[in-house]
Amino acid sequence: MAFRDFPDYRAVARLNALAECPHDLTAPDGLTVERITALRASSCGFDLLYATQRVSDEVMDALQALADEAGLVETFRAMKGGAVLNRIEGFDSENRQVLHTASRDVFAEPPAAPEASARARAELDKLRAFLHDLNRGRLVNAQGKPFTTMVQVGIGGSDLGPRALYLALKAHAVEGRSARFIANVDPDDAAEVLQGLDLSRTLVNIVSKSGTTLETLTNERLVCAALERAGLDPARHLVAVTGEGSPMDDPSRYLRSFHMFDSIGGRYSATSMVGAVTLGFALGMEAVLEILRGAHQMDLAAEEPDIRRNLPLLMALLGIWNHNFLGCRTVAVLPYSQALSRFPAHLQQCDMESNGKSVTRRGEPVRWLTGPVVWGEPGTNGQHAFYQLIHQGTEVVPVEFIGFRRSQYGEDIEVYGTSSQQKLVANMLAQSLALAAGKRDANPNRAFPGNRPNSVLIAERLTPRTMGALLALYEHRIAFQGFCWNINSFDQEGVQLGKVLATQLLAIMADTSLDRSGAGEAGSVAAGLLHRAGML
Amino acid sequence: MAFRDFPDYRAVARLNALAECPHDLTAPDGLTVERITALRASSCGFDLLYATQRVSDEVMDALQALADEAGLVETFRAMKGGAVLNRIEGFDSENRQVLHTASRDVFAEPPAAPEASARARAELDKLRAFLHDLNRGRLVNAQGKPFTTMVQVGIGGSDLGPRALYLALKAHAVEGRSARFIANVDPDDAAEVLQGLDLSRTLVNIVSKSGTTLETLTNERLVCAALERAGLDPARHLVAVTGEGSPMDDPSRYLRSFHMFDSIGGRYSATSMVGAVTLGFALGMEAVLEILRGAHQMDLAAEEPDIRRNLPLLMALLGIWNHNFLGCRTVAVLPYSQALSRFPAHLQQCDMESNGKSVTRRGEPVRWLTGPVVWGEPGTNGQHAFYQLIHQGTEVVPVEFIGFRRSQYGEDIEVYGTSSQQKLVANMLAQSLALAAGKRDANPNRAFPGNRPNSVLIAERLTPRTMGALLALYEHRIAFQGFCWNINSFDQEGVQLGKVLATQLLAIMADTSLDRSGAGEAGSVAAGLLHRAGML
Repeated sequence: MAFRDFPDYRAVARLNALAECPHDLTAPDGLTVERITALRASSCGFDLLYATQRVSDEVMDALQALADEAGLVETFRAMKGGAVLNRIEGFDSENRQVLHTASRDVFAEPPAAPEASARARAELDKLRAFLHDLNRGRLVNAQGKPFTTMVQVGIGGSDLGPRALYLALKAHAVEGRSARFIANVDPDDAAEVLQGLDLSRTLVNIVSKSGTTLETLTNERLVCAALERAGLDPARHLVAVTGEGSPMDDPSRYLRSFHMFDSIGGRYSATSMVGAVTLGFALGMEAVLEILRGAHQMDLAAEEPDIRRNLPLLMALLGIWNHNFLGCRTVAVLPYSQALSRFPAHLQQCDMESNGKSVTRRGEPVRWLTGPVVWGEPGTNGQHAFYQLIHQGTEVVPVEFIGFRRSQYGEDIEVYGTSSQQKLVANMLAQSLALAAGKRDANPNRAFPGNRPNSVLIAERLTPRTMGALLALYEHRIAFQGFCWNINSFDQEGVQLGKVLATQLLAIMADTSLDRSGAGEAGSVAAGLLHRAGML
Repeated sequence: MAFRDFPDYRAVARLNALAECPHDLTAPDGLTVERITALRASSCGFDLLYATQRVSDEVMDALQALADEAGLVETFRAMKGGAVLNRIEGFDSENRQVLHTASRDVFAEPPAAPEASARARAELDKLRAFLHDLNRGRLVNAQGKPFTTMVQVGIGGSDLGPRALYLALKAHAVEGRSARFIANVDPDDAAEVLQGLDLSRTLVNIVSKSGTTLETLTNERLVCAALERAGLDPARHLVAVTGEGSPMDDPSRYLRSFHMFDSIGGRYSATSMVGAVTLGFALGMEAVLEILRGAHQMDLAAEEPDIRRNLPLLMALLGIWNHNFLGCRTVAVLPYSQALSRFPAHLQQCDMESNGKSVTRRGEPVRWLTGPVVWGEPGTNGQHAFYQLIHQGTEVVPVEFIGFRRSQYGEDIEVYGTSSQQKLVANMLAQSLALAAGKRDANPNRAFPGNRPNSVLIAERLTPRTMGALLALYEHRIAFQGFCWNINSFDQEGVQLGKVLATQLLAIMADTSLDRSGAGEAGSVAAGLLHRAGML
C-alpha cells in the first residue's frame, strides 16, 4: 500500500471547494421529508439518519471519491488480514499487526487471520471452562460459597472499554453476580470500591497487557493487602489477564490466567479477554458470544466500498467533512441511553489515543488536522447542561446522537400520554432537528443559528449483540479516519514522556518523601526534576 | 455599569500584539526554578502553579489592565450586592439578580445582600430542624425505622452540582447514610437506581426550581409508582425543593418542603437547598456549613483587584489568554482525585451553559470567541486514555489540573518506595511539566512539541471546606470570563428550542404512538413535526 498525504488527494481539493458553500439546513427547503428519507443508511440493526449533516449529493460523491482514492476499505481489509499497520516507515516503531477483529472472527470459516483467531478461540475455551467451574460450584471460596462479585483492576484500555460495556449491559447480568472496577492510582478509588464488598465472595481480575502498569500493580498490592487483612488468601481470589511472557504471566500466582496478544492494542481490546473475563463472569458466556457476534457482523459490514451503505466508513467521512473542511474542532457523542453513560469515556480513549497524532506513517509532520477532541454525556441530561453552547455558542460542535427505540428494563410509565422511552427518543430527534434547522426570532437572544451538523444512530434495543456492533462501528470509524489522515492510529508514543518524568519525580520523592508544607516545595522538587531531566 | 465590547478594550489590542510571540516554555530558560517559584498564587488553602502557562510579565500586566478596564471585580461586587445582571438590555429577558453568593454570605454581618441571605438562613434553619428530626428518630418510616438513603430526583443544576459534591465528599458520609441520584428521563436510569434499594428506608428528594421540569415530574411519578407497588405511602417518603409558588410548592404532598429562589440559577444552586438537603442528609449539617464556609471564603477572595492574588480572576484571565489570544478551543479540567470524578461534568454545565452565548448584554452579535468546550476525566486514568492527543495531537488543549497532597480515606500502600498518593501527585506534576517543556527526539514520532499551556491547582486534602472553596472558585472564574466577554452568563435561552420541538413531537406521538418498525417512520414523524412546526 502506497500511503499518500491527505492534501494530495484530488477529492480533497474538490471538498475544499465545496466547503466554501456547504448545504444550508436553515433554508426553506434545507430539510425536507425527501432529504430525511434519502439520507439514511442501515447496518447490523442500526439506522444512521444524516439528513442533518451539511452535505449535498456533490459532497457525498466527493467523500466517496476520497474513500476510493485513499483505499480506505482496502486498508481495512489488509488490517483484518494481518498487515503490519502499526508502524512508522523508516523509524523505530511498534511494528505490529492490528488484529482486534480476529477476536470476533472466530465465527468465520476460514477467518481472515487464522492464527490470531485460533489464539482467540483457545482463550474463549479457557473462559468457558472457568465460567463452567464457577457455575457448577467447582470454583468456590474457602467456605465453599460461590463468588458474587468480580473486581477488575486495570487502567486505560484495560478499564474503559470493559467498564463501558458492563454498565451498558448490566441490565442483562446473571442473577447474583456483579462487577466493579478499580483503575486510578488514587488510593481513594480502591478504598471506595473495596469498602462496600464482601471480600470473601469477591474475585479480583488483574488486567495489564505489559504486566508492568504502575497503577495496576500498585492496586493489585493494595487489594491483596485488603484480602490478607480480611484473613483471605489472595491466590484463591485473583485471576489475571496479561500478555504472553509478561512479568504477570505467572499462573502460580493466580487462580486462572488468560492471555492477550501484541496484535491487539489496549483501546481495541474490549472484545479480547481484557473485557471477556469480567463480562463473562457478570453477564454469562452467551452474552460474551453475542457481543462478539454483533462486532463480527459490523466487521463484515465495514468491508462494503459504497460509503452510503457502510456505516463506519460513512461516519468516518462525515466526521472528516466537519473537521477538516468545515473547521469544527471537537465531536460530541451524546447517547440517549443512561446505560451508555461511560461509552463516551471509552471513545475518548479509542479515538483520541488513536488519532491524536502529528506525524504521518512516514514520520513526516502532518500539515492538516488529525483527531478532534471527543466528549459527551448522556441525554436528556446534557440538554440541561451544556446544550446551551451547542445551540448558541460561538463554537460549532458536531454531534453524534445514539438512541434506542425500547428500554432495557422495560419498567416504564406513561405520563401526559407518552412513555418515558418515547420522551427520550422524541427529545433526541427534536435536538437533532433544532440544531440543524435553527430558528429566527426578533429577540436576538432567542434566535438559533442552526446549521449545526449532527447525525442520529438508532437501534431497537441495547442488547449484547447491539453493543458489540456499536463498539465495532466506532472502532472502524476511528480506523478509517486514521487511514485517511495517513497516520498510525495504533501506537501511543505520546504517553511516554509523562511516564518518564513521573518515574524520575518519584525517585526523588522516594528519597526525600513528598514535602507537605506547601507547593513551594513541590515546585522545587519539580524544578529539581526538570534539572535532573536535563531540561533546564 | 457601562459594558463595553471585548475588542474595544485597549488591553485587548496589547494582548493581540503579545500573542504574536508568546512565552516559549520549551526554550532553554523557558521554565526555571525562579519562574516556578514566582508564578504561583494562593487562596483559601489552594495554590495555583501557573509557570506552565505561556505568559510573560508583560502578558500578566496586560491581563491586569484588561481586568481593570473591564471592571471585572466591580461587576462581581455589584453581583454580590444584588445588581440585576441577568438581563439583555433592550430585549425581553429574565431580568433577575444573581445571588448564589448570598447562600453562603450567611456568615457575614451584614451580608452583601441582606434579604437574600435572610431567606437562605431561614432555609438552613428548616434543614437543621429536618436533620434533627431524622437524627432524633422523630422522623422515621412506617415501621419506626430510620431512613438510610436519600434519592435525589432532579436534572441539570438540580443534579450535576449536588451529585459531584456528594461523590467528592462521600468519604465523609454519616455512618449508615448514603445518597443516590436519578436524572435522566430514560426509564432505565430510575430502574437501575431503584432496584438496589430498600424503599421502606428511602427518602426521595424531588428537586425542580420551576416545578415543571418534564424529566423530574416524570421520574417523580415513576418513583411514586414504585413506592406504591412496595406498599408504601409516597407522602411519607417524599421531600421537595422548589421555587416559591411553583406548581410543586405544595407542602401537603411532601414530608418537608424547601425553597430555592429566582435569584439563584440552577447551575449555581449547589450551595442552596438544591444541594444542601441531600448533602445534609448524607454528610450531616456540619459538613453543609463547612461547604458554605469554604465557598464564602472564596467569595471574599474573589474581591481582590490584583489578578496575581485573586485565584478565580487569575484563572479567568489565563483562560481568556489561551482561548481568545492563543486560539485554543477547549479546556480540559483534569482532577487527580477519583472523588472529583463528576466535577468536570458539573463544570460542563456551569461553564458551557453560562458562557456558550453569541449575543452581548445589549443583544448584539458577538464578534469574538465566548465560552470554550469544557471536558475532562480524573487522572491518572486520563493518562492512559486521551493524553496522547493532548501531548501530540494537532489540537492544543489547555489543561487545568486539580490535586491534593493527602488522600481522603487514608488507606494507602507503599510500593517501590512511594505511596499511591505520592504517585498520584507526582504524575500530575510530571504531566504539567511534560506538556509545557516537551522533548526533542531524533524519532519524530517520539518528539513532543511542548508549549501546551496548563496550570496546577493544589490543596492539602479534599474536605467539605476545600470542596466549597473549589466550587466557588470555578463559579467565579466563569462569571469573570462572562463579564469580560460582555455576555449574560446567567440565562439559558439556548435550551428552549429543543424543548419546544420535543413537546410538539410528543404531541404527535401521543396520538400515533412511536412507530417501532424502523427509522423511516421515525424520520416521517420527524418530518411531520418539521412540517407542523412550520419549518419546512
